[in-house]
Amino acid sequence: MHELDTPTFRLAMAQFDQAAEAMELDPNLRERLKLPQRSLIVSVPVRMDDGRVEVYTGYRVQHDSSRGPTKGGIRYHPDVNLGEVAALAMWMTWKCALADLPYGGAKGGVAVDPKQLSRAELQRLTRRYAAEIFPLIGPEKDVPAPDVGTDAQVMAWIMDTYSQQVGYSVPGVVTGKPLSIGGSLGREEATGRGVVYVTIEALRHLKLDIRNSTVVIQGFGNVGAHTARIMQECGARVIAVSDVNGGIHNASGLDIPELLTRCKTHGQSLRDTK
Amino acid sequence: MHELDTPTFRLAMAQFDQAAEAMELDPNLRERLKLPQRSLIVSVPVRMDDGRVEVYTGYRVQHDSSRGPTKGGIRYHPDVNLGEVAALAMWMTWKCALADLPYGGAKGGVAVDPKQLSRAELQRLTRRYAAEIFPLIGPEKDVPAPDVGTDAQVMAWIMDTYSQQVGYSVPGVVTGKPLSIGGSLGREEATGRGVVYVTIEALRHLKLDIRNSTVVIQGFGNVGAHTARIMQECGARVIAVSDVNGGIHNASGLDIPELLTRCKTHGQSLRDTK
Amino acid sequence: MHELDTPTFRLAMAQFDQAAEAMELDPNLRERLKLPQRSLIVSVPVRMDDGRVEVYTGYRVQHDSSRGPTKGGIRYHPDVNLGEVAALAMWMTWKCALADLPYGGAKGGVAVDPKQLSRAELQRLTRRYAAEIFPLIGPEKDVPAPDVGTDAQVMAWIMDTYSQQVGYSVPGVVTGKPLSIGGSLGREEATGRGVVYVTIEALRHLKLDIRNSTVVIQGFGNVGAHTARIMQECGARVIAVSDVNGGIHNASGLDIPELLTRCKTHGQSLRDTK
Amino acid sequence: MHELDTPTFRLAMAQFDQAAEAMELDPNLRERLKLPQRSLIVSVPVRMDDGRVEVYTGYRVQHDSSRGPTKGGIRYHPDVNLGEVAALAMWMTWKCALADLPYGGAKGGVAVDPKQLSRAELQRLTRRYAAEIFPLIGPEKDVPAPDVGTDAQVMAWIMDTYSQQVGYSVPGVVTGKPLSIGGSLGREEATGRGVVYVTIEALRHLKLDIRNSTVVIQGFGNVGAHTARIMQECGARVIAVSDVNGGIHNASGLDIPELLTRCKTHGQSLRDTK
Amino acid sequence: MHELDTPTFRLAMAQFDQAAEAMELDPNLRERLKLPQRSLIVSVPVRMDDGRVEVYTGYRVQHDSSRGPTKGGIRYHPDVNLGEVAALAMWMTWKCALADLPYGGAKGGVAVDPKQLSRAELQRLTRRYAAEIFPLIGPEKDVPAPDVGTDAQVMAWIMDTYSQQVGYSVPGVVTGKPLSIGGSLGREEATGRGVVYVTIEALRHLKLDIRNSTVVIQGFGNVGAHTARIMQECGARVIAVSDVNGGIHNASGLDIPELLTRCKTHGQSLRDTK
Amino acid sequence: MHELDTPTFRLAMAQFDQAAEAMELDPNLRERLKLPQRSLIVSVPVRMDDGRVEVYTGYRVQHDSSRGPTKGGIRYHPDVNLGEVAALAMWMTWKCALADLPYGGAKGGVAVDPKQLSRAELQRLTRRYAAEIFPLIGPEKDVPAPDVGTDAQVMAWIMDTYSQQVGYSVPGVVTGKPLSIGGSLGREEATGRGVVYVTIEALRHLKLDIRNSTVVIQGFGNVGAHTARIMQECGARVIAVSDVNGGIHNASGLDIPELLTRCKTHGQSLRDTK
Repeated sequence: MHELDTPTFRLAMAQFDQAAEAMELDPNLRERLKLPQRSLIVSVPVRMDDGRVEVYTGYRVQHDSSRGPTKGGIRYHPDVNLGEVAALAMWMTWKCALADLPYGGAKGGVAVDPKQLSRAELQRLTRRYAAEIFPLIGPEKDVPAPDVGTDAQVMAWIMDTYSQQVGYSVPGVVTGKPLSIGGSLGREEATGRGVVYVTIEALRHLKLDIRNSTVVIQGFGNVGAHTARIMQECGARVIAVSDVNGGIHNASGLDIPELLTRCKTHGQSLRDTK
Repeated sequence: MHELDTPTFRLAMAQFDQAAEAMELDPNLRERLKLPQRSLIVSVPVRMDDGRVEVYTGYRVQHDSSRGPTKGGIRYHPDVNLGEVAALAMWMTWKCALADLPYGGAKGGVAVDPKQLSRAELQRLTRRYAAEIFPLIGPEKDVPAPDVGTDAQVMAWIMDTYSQQVGYSVPGVVTGKPLSIGGSLGREEATGRGVVYVTIEALRHLKLDIRNSTVVIQGFGNVGAHTARIMQECGARVIAVSDVNGGIHNASGLDIPELLTRCKTHGQSLRDTK
Repeated sequence: MHELDTPTFRLAMAQFDQAAEAMELDPNLRERLKLPQRSLIVSVPVRMDDGRVEVYTGYRVQHDSSRGPTKGGIRYHPDVNLGEVAALAMWMTWKCALADLPYGGAKGGVAVDPKQLSRAELQRLTRRYAAEIFPLIGPEKDVPAPDVGTDAQVMAWIMDTYSQQVGYSVPGVVTGKPLSIGGSLGREEATGRGVVYVTIEALRHLKLDIRNSTVVIQGFGNVGAHTARIMQECGARVIAVSDVNGGIHNASGLDIPELLTRCKTHGQSLRDTK
Repeated sequence: MHELDTPTFRLAMAQFDQAAEAMELDPNLRERLKLPQRSLIVSVPVRMDDGRVEVYTGYRVQHDSSRGPTKGGIRYHPDVNLGEVAALAMWMTWKCALADLPYGGAKGGVAVDPKQLSRAELQRLTRRYAAEIFPLIGPEKDVPAPDVGTDAQVMAWIMDTYSQQVGYSVPGVVTGKPLSIGGSLGREEATGRGVVYVTIEALRHLKLDIRNSTVVIQGFGNVGAHTARIMQECGARVIAVSDVNGGIHNASGLDIPELLTRCKTHGQSLRDTK
Repeated sequence: MHELDTPTFRLAMAQFDQAAEAMELDPNLRERLKLPQRSLIVSVPVRMDDGRVEVYTGYRVQHDSSRGPTKGGIRYHPDVNLGEVAALAMWMTWKCALADLPYGGAKGGVAVDPKQLSRAELQRLTRRYAAEIFPLIGPEKDVPAPDVGTDAQVMAWIMDTYSQQVGYSVPGVVTGKPLSIGGSLGREEATGRGVVYVTIEALRHLKLDIRNSTVVIQGFGNVGAHTARIMQECGARVIAVSDVNGGIHNASGLDIPELLTRCKTHGQSLRDTK
Repeated sequence: MHELDTPTFRLAMAQFDQAAEAMELDPNLRERLKLPQRSLIVSVPVRMDDGRVEVYTGYRVQHDSSRGPTKGGIRYHPDVNLGEVAALAMWMTWKCALADLPYGGAKGGVAVDPKQLSRAELQRLTRRYAAEIFPLIGPEKDVPAPDVGTDAQVMAWIMDTYSQQVGYSVPGVVTGKPLSIGGSLGREEATGRGVVYVTIEALRHLKLDIRNSTVVIQGFGNVGAHTARIMQECGARVIAVSDVNGGIHNASGLDIPELLTRCKTHGQSLRDTK
């Protein structure tokens, strides 16, 4: 299918073929799992603040729903295309299945640079995109989540658009929404916590103990900062962190909570921290 | 949108731009009418008679629904792709609007050579394709019809699949179905009759009368044969017809009904007719 | 299926087999058309005027819906049972198909003697029965009508119960309802008119003319009286009519309108008429 | 209602009357609880592997839904009839109520010998039966389960047919489905575990202790084998088991796990075991 | 019910009581027909062009739906209140019943001066109001129409809001919409034509002929101008018309088409016409 | 909006303005939260036992649903009017939000004195009222509960009416229903328990311990009696209780369980107790 033929999708296909080969997957199943079940492309006309109508292209791909409702983020990025979205949807199927969650994989996106839009334009884009994919999503069908370029606010708009269409509030139509309308505690730190869990499991394989380990972390944004804090809580000694602006090192261990407070209070980046 | 970027779609876009230019269409409307509203790509796994599962790619594109439910054929052909289907859907919008019918334009298709399939395989392919596009079609949403590679039987299978899903018989979900389950009289000859109507209108522009005209027709299948018959009924003298195998000419006019009977009764092509 | 095994159903089966034999019906189709598609039996608890709860048994059988929504009356009679209802449903399929109406056949009923019920009890029985068969009926699924022991008022109750359940007025869920809520003109005389049409067709076969015919009619209720009147309007000479109480004869033709007026005005039966 | 009049239903009625008498049940309630609320009979045409169409009769009876959605198995057996299914549905109402589960009672079945069908025929039979009873079942209406002649695979087909009709995966429409699509752990051994629980309760009444008891079990299939294993885990001494082929006895107690392994590994029946 | 207690509603009640008295209406029916079946009050928050949120109050009253879906206009006027809307809804019931149309009566409105709103604000107000009354309206439930302060454009927005919520175009949800999306020909002149029909009927009672009548018309807007034109077409001599700015008189009859053209072409009011 | 203008609603508005002032609430939000989102007024015709039809006025007001489905009681009292119901609905929004429950606020009622109705009339009133507000309520939309003049039995009738309309049992449509159909344990004593919790929190603020406190309670009905019992269970000394008939005092503490038994067993009021 030439519509999916992009480098990302070719990569996902190659990985799939390799895994299917290794597990001697039944050829019939292989055929069915290779391509996404449903791919929807929608035009998203948006009235810009200056009165013009700009038309963006939106996507929603559901790779496989045989294990339950599909689940996957929505990405706003100028390079989004069908092949990329389809590859990410397929990876969501494997992620959910490996974690034994009763979900299939999906992914969506709009080819747009959200930083070029005003907040009002972003809202109109999101609401129109949500209205167009409405027949395919729902708490028992397909549940979006934030991804690159989208956040809790975007999820709130999607939830509100969906809720207006059915006539009552439906919090289950998205995850990653704000706490005040039913979002989950701990979601912000969830990726960092996942990094720690995976690290601990890897150490167990290597017969190492996190409590005797020293840790160096590259990146100190949402993921890296939470990783550093949780690593330390688990007993590791975090001796260095860095971000795009610089790094900080202390062989006897950094005081991560103090570092976080300083960054937050003074708006400092790591460069300004000594 | 690279997914649509095929020669057929580029042609449709060029035509549209030219018309939009000529009618000085509002730029905002132009943006919105250029791209289809919704394009759905589905995987259609089919169990072949030999037990293998073959996965085909199906499409359904709805170009614009602001004038009413969308309407458009379903095409089974190996070369079907998203760009072609989108171009045909756009043309359906213009056709319906020019004839002032309260319908928008749509088109669908499956990339398959139907002549390579057994009747049972064709049925399974059709039923699965219909089940996958189910959320987007319906008598008040989008109404398929036969097109290249599909016929009344295929429509009957789509109608039956849709009807089973809602729980009662829904003849309005397709047009071009068999007469016995609610199809329309005259549909078989409709295209030929349309050719005659257009010809008569063209003659009127040229201040000519169909009753003094001589007619030559290339093609003597479903379209050409009915055109010949109706032309004659309208008073024209049909002096020659031809098909892929040969032709027949009589300057004082052919006896079309007799010719049709001979072709039908003896299974003759024009080559065998003298 | 022993649940259907009653004399009436055996009769319908024998007729069907004979017809199927005569038309050399495909054995697979024969198997499918022999038994009704769906048969629903419901318990209908009714609070009687004296406070007791009486539980009646109701039926709704849909014989075949492949030609369209099913259609058929609802009968209140102590002898109603599943076999009889199933036979009548099958006959409705043939009747609709022979008249080339886009309907399948159905029938329903309750095993109750309506003459033993007060009007309030009859209403409660009807509303409860309608509520129980609700998932199977509807303007596009299955449309009841009056039959033995039911009338326009019973249809009005069914329509109202159905309408309350969907939340708005649905006249299409029954036929034979009162004119004031959407019933059809001419329904009361429809059966009598049908008798006349059939008679005229039979006469045509026999090369006879209705205008030179003399007519004798047994029964002078809703069917017989309208038959007599319409026969006369078509030019026949009605020389005798009779009912359960007696008969009246006049070799030069009865004055049917005058007879009808007398019966209606003076509440006379034929016995009292000279 | 003669349609239900079978020995099994008469037995259930007699039991009910006895219990109603004992508890002095209100006569009005007694009338309402005697007969099932809804009984659906459907024709199930199945294309056999040799091309013939065979039409089977299927049933679904909902006895009483006032305590919640109805619940009950689906039985494939040549002797299934409406009376039997209705009796089993009534028993399900009592079972659920006695265990204080928020469910009413239902039961279903098809009059067919599943051992005479190929796997493909069994699938087609099941999917068609599920499609026909579709309007009455659902997670909040009526939830089927496996019973005599049906298993987790049959439930998977029903779940898939239902899910296709609503357009997304609905695991809650059946219980007893395979683990991989949402089935419950422990279901296979559930009946055996129930036998043990009931036995322990009975012993408590008799002031006996399971740990000083010796156990003899007739039957060593799914129920008996799990019963034997769990009895032993609870401290009982299982001194003999038998099945249709023979028996095995050891006064000082059998080694059940070893016996189970031998049966499973070597495909032995008890006859071959010494 | 004090919520309805306004002069307009008291007037409607008095009229109703008088009519009910005259026709000796059954007291039970009288009680039921006095008050509207359902009255919905909604808050309509609108973001104004300057960023403020203004909250308007909207109404939709359904007086009686026993004859079919309810029907009635939507009024935008600062003085709209529940009592007025309820009175107008009741009058719609009588109007539809007298004309023997299968509709009940309804009415709606928003307490707002539409002339104070920009077009964008008017659109947002209308779409939000439509979304709030969504659960009560629909082609088979309740069908709005234009009224004081609303027009075809407002109907188009309501239709579009409704259509977006159900997912496909629903022209039947409003009447009085633009021709291009399914409006009816002749609607603009309908009220004027109605005035002429009523006049002709009144003349017939008086044994007068429209063709020998002279006509004077007060008002020359949408209603008056069409009345004048149609009166003349029916043979009457229109000798004078006037509007808020002045009048024009010609004892031998005005040339209405010429007058209409002059008003339209030169944007003149009657004052400027001589 | 004059329809809401009653003393109770003016009180609620004044409280809201004061709180909004104190928390410096965004003026736009203030506008939106001041008025209820939807207010439905319905006519409720009831056939009285003597055959007359009496028409009552019912209300259901949903104040704000942005935090989840709305929740609130249904009140039967002659003085119920729209303003009061709207005020109570608004208070429910604040109560749910302060307790961080994912619900918005609603309230309903009928202007009727339930003590003047027979049980059958009360049932017919309730079922008709429930049918009329049906489009606005549901487990995911708006969930009624008992309030002044209504009880678990009224909730059971509402649940049954709603369940009949959707076709299966829906316990989630009301709270406060009887235990046997899914009600919650502890609901009867819930208000009394709430009084104790609030008292304990107040004591904590005052640095006092419930175990050293003496308690005097005015009222010994459902709320007071449970309060007394739970206070004592928490360690307080209840030295006096009173009701409309008299009081009882014992400085060393009353024996509340004994007092409750005496009241219940002997049907005594406090006056008869010594």
